[in-house]
Amino acid sequence: MGGHEIQQLIRLFGRLPGLGPRSARRIVLYLLRDPQARLQPLLRALDQTGQAVTTCSTCGNLDTSDPCHICTDETRDQRLVCVVETVGDLWALERAGVHGGVYQVLGGTLSPLAGVGPEDLNIASLLARLDAGQVREIILALGATVEGATTMHWLMDRLAEYEVTLSRVAQGVPAGGALDVLDDGTLAAALGARRPA
Amino acid sequence: MGGHEIQQLIRLFGRLPGLGPRSARRIVLYLLRDPQARLQPLLRALDQTGQAVTTCSTCGNLDTSDPCHICTDETRDQRLVCVVETVGDLWALERAGVHGGVYQVLGGTLSPLAGVGPEDLNIASLLARLDAGQVREIILALGATVEGATTMHWLMDRLAEYEVTLSRVAQGVPAGGALDVLDDGTLAAALGARRPA
Ligand SMILES: [Zn+2]
Ligand SMILES: [Zn+2]
Repeated sequence: MGGHEIQQLIRLFGRLPGLGPRSARRIVLYLLRDPQARLQPLLRALDQTGQAVTTCSTCGNLDTSDPCHICTDETRDQRLVCVVETVGDLWALERAGVHGGVYQVLGGTLSPLAGVGPEDLNIASLLARLDAGQVREIILALGATVEGATTMHWLMDRLAEYEVTLSRVAQGVPAGGALDVLDDGTLAAALGARRPA
Repeated sequence: MGGHEIQQLIRLFGRLPGLGPRSARRIVLYLLRDPQARLQPLLRALDQTGQAVTTCSTCGNLDTSDPCHICTDETRDQRLVCVVETVGDLWALERAGVHGGVYQVLGGTLSPLAGVGPEDLNIASLLARLDAGQVREIILALGATVEGATTMHWLMDRLAEYEVTLSRVAQGVPAGGALDVLDDGTLAAALGARRPA
């Protein structure tokens, strides 16, 4: 094997989601066989992104600018807010290209058992947007899990006092399924068939 | 999605062996959710390894020192040289812990069809080690492929003039392997190399 530094690099790659020791070794070997063409570009991209990445203070998206490029995109309907659990869900909806509005990333779901309450989620900034009259319609795009349903109902209660159209994705989200593994067509159907909450 | 830098990072991860767009997104999201604890250590390890990695001028191993830590390990039999095709093969043998000598990494196999000749492989330094009288025994540990066999026979011819013991790894049924999933070549080799039970 290579020396201490190479072992450490394999260990770190092996901790990434979906990777193990074998795939990590394969990747590190690939990078080290041509460091100039393979390792260096990855190093630069990690450096630049790591320095610039920030959480959008408006919506909770991860981006290299705050507000993020979605919250500053004037071609989007800034008053149509899609509420999602995670940045991964936001990315999935963006890839599908099925939502022309903006987002609110909660950063998780309510879970009394796990001790996750409303104050642990990114809800204050959603209420601030509502209080400022910046929201016309809210789409609740939460996963079809117990926690997703709990969160959705809590939000429906909490948002009832506001003058906004409230809808939720209904068709297409399989029971127990997370949004970010769904194909584009399913996501499109789920959004298109949203119903009043 | 995130901005330009994040997209570029996902693209680069997606090019690594065994990864695609989906696994790359998952990894980048994982890194960006906690840059300090996840992205930065990976960045540092890539930087350190990228700066230090070099090819051992004795054996062809990739390491952060030249000669590599195997070639300088006095607890190993420096006169017993195992010839392998790739650094990946060397790593596999090291993980198995089955070789107490040193290595010679050819960097590929002879392939007249692909235009790979002896001058394209790391053979000169092997001959130099032989000429210097540093080698007592050579184990040819090449793959059981057409190219591996071609390379092995070429080396057996080329090394015939030297006063060294020449051996090759046995072909046969892998440990834990059932016979009915093996290809014909492996079965033929396993039968041909049968030993008294
Ligand atoms: Zn934003
Ligand atoms: Zn070496």
